[in-house]
Amino acid sequence: MRSGRWILALDVGGTNMVAALIHEDGGDPVGLRTRSTPADQGPAALADAAVDLLAQVRTVGTSGGIAANQIVGVGVGVPGAVDAVRGIVFLAPNLGWRDVPIRDLLQDRLELPVVVDNDANCAALGEWWTGAGRGSRLLVTATLGTGIGGGIVRDGRVLRGVSGAAGEIGHMVVQVVGGRACSCGSDGCLEAYASGTAIRARAREALADGTPSRIREIVQGGVERVTAQEVAQAAREGDELALRLIRETASFLGAGLASLVNILNPDRIVLAGGVMQAGDLLLLPVREEVRRRAFEASSEACVIAAAREPETAGVRGAALTFRREVLEGHR
Amino acid sequence: MRSGRWILALDVGGTNMVAALIHEDGGDPVGLRTRSTPADQGPAALADAAVDLLAQVRTVGTSGGIAANQIVGVGVGVPGAVDAVRGIVFLAPNLGWRDVPIRDLLQDRLELPVVVDNDANCAALGEWWTGAGRGSRLLVTATLGTGIGGGIVRDGRVLRGVSGAAGEIGHMVVQVVGGRACSCGSDGCLEAYASGTAIRARAREALADGTPSRIREIVQGGVERVTAQEVAQAAREGDELALRLIRETASFLGAGLASLVNILNPDRIVLAGGVMQAGDLLLLPVREEVRRRAFEASSEACVIAAAREPETAGVRGAALTFRREVLEGHR
Repeated sequence: MRSGRWILALDVGGTNMVAALIHEDGGDPVGLRTRSTPADQGPAALADAAVDLLAQVRTVGTSGGIAANQIVGVGVGVPGAVDAVRGIVFLAPNLGWRDVPIRDLLQDRLELPVVVDNDANCAALGEWWTGAGRGSRLLVTATLGTGIGGGIVRDGRVLRGVSGAAGEIGHMVVQVVGGRACSCGSDGCLEAYASGTAIRARAREALADGTPSRIREIVQGGVERVTAQEVAQAAREGDELALRLIRETASFLGAGLASLVNILNPDRIVLAGGVMQAGDLLLLPVREEVRRRAFEASSEACVIAAAREPETAGVRGAALTFRREVLEGHR
Repeated sequence: MRSGRWILALDVGGTNMVAALIHEDGGDPVGLRTRSTPADQGPAALADAAVDLLAQVRTVGTSGGIAANQIVGVGVGVPGAVDAVRGIVFLAPNLGWRDVPIRDLLQDRLELPVVVDNDANCAALGEWWTGAGRGSRLLVTATLGTGIGGGIVRDGRVLRGVSGAAGEIGHMVVQVVGGRACSCGSDGCLEAYASGTAIRARAREALADGTPSRIREIVQGGVERVTAQEVAQAAREGDELALRLIRETASFLGAGLASLVNILNPDRIVLAGGVMQAGDLLLLPVREEVRRRAFEASSEACVIAAAREPETAGVRGAALTFRREVLEGHR
């Protein structure tokens, strides 16, 4: 194995947890393991499950030639608002957490230094460090999943805003008049149109009125179980309804990204999440819409790409966060 | 007069030019002068007019006790896309300019070092330095005039983006479906709803169908001459149509600012421009809409205020730009 120091990295999602060993200089994750998140069993149970997963990863690493003393600490991404300085999750709706001292919970169990940050910031940083955002000076990432998460990385540093809450690009308003209700309590947010949940809701509505569609055949167990994945598959098979749903998604997503291009003038936007399974069917019209809407100079300066290894962006970014905070002594 | 160095500052607008002397440490502008911009007579005529205006300002300064050798240079803000390093305006639609070497044009005439930047960036910097944005860590400014200009200042530095075009907050899309056409070629932009031009267009449409309104009496010479000013005045007098127009403006502007609060998590937003003559009639519902739409923590962290001396923000910022670039040797 390579010499140097290794970081245990953990990406806690609302549904799954991903863990791996990451070398301090980057490179491919080692010992990648995933399991379901015990989201409804409280912080202690989640910490126990995380420790168990990290132990498996560590075993793969040490049996592969990484010495125990080369593993210097743990970087963790959690889906919520994080006080990174004190290692506290002050709000994580998907986990039902409020003011959970997750850093101490893990540190006590692992006997290694632990650093905690928001999962979307970790994913953005991971894309910048060793992903599709590599080399960019101003990167915006969007993860189109259950919701829409986002992160902004400028010169390799996460742009956090004054209270650590920046990057919520899913909650920019794209439809003021007649906007769909959003889970955040507002309406007309990008998330209410271009998240997996939104595509699912729009697909159900479209199917409810009896419009013929290949989606019915693809979905197992009734159209109320349709997800963005089935819509993407039906679209690839040429289904008209599915193609219309993807085009509408591209129209809203393209408008949202055009706004970001005009506001921030980034050189890269990286898209990830289940919705991106639609591939070029979504990406090409999104690029077209950004080109149509944004200022030419800003649009030309910005590459819009799909993430290459989105499932490990979170652990890669969590590892870089640990490296900076503990190994380099700054964030 | 105070000792130290003084900077001649010029803010070129599409309609008017403002010039003043600004002390390198800030404070009130001295010798403030304004005149109309000869926008359609070409760069040389504009440079001549600017030199004339700056000469008047200089005379006021020197007769007030500022020695000629205390005046060390010139900072200029222009309404367009600027290559600040080479001092070239590469595109200024309001002036009909393309690739105009405005720095050299002024430097040759003035025999003083000249620094040029975009006017919206200058205004944002001026608000941060000695205006309503003073002391803020992350400031967003919006000038609601003919169009909507914007600037983002982080830790006292303009956030420029990768090609110097960031801050175009007037061209975020707030209405994807059924959006009004925008001057930029896109549609549904914030500028198409909340600029002075947009309010004027919406007022004309509303008046065209014969709706009774105090606006008719206030406007001299026919309703087609209505501007945002008359709408504001009629609203202050309790006119229902005018109040509805202001409420609609607040709804779109509030949504746009909520998006910025969620994306950037700033601690201050400063609003300027003719549209702000509506005062609290506009500002209070805008704040309400941001509170309703944005995440609570981010919304609470952000003060939304009217600019105090918007007419001099541009010259103040242009002076700070000069100070940094020439007196301190960095931007």
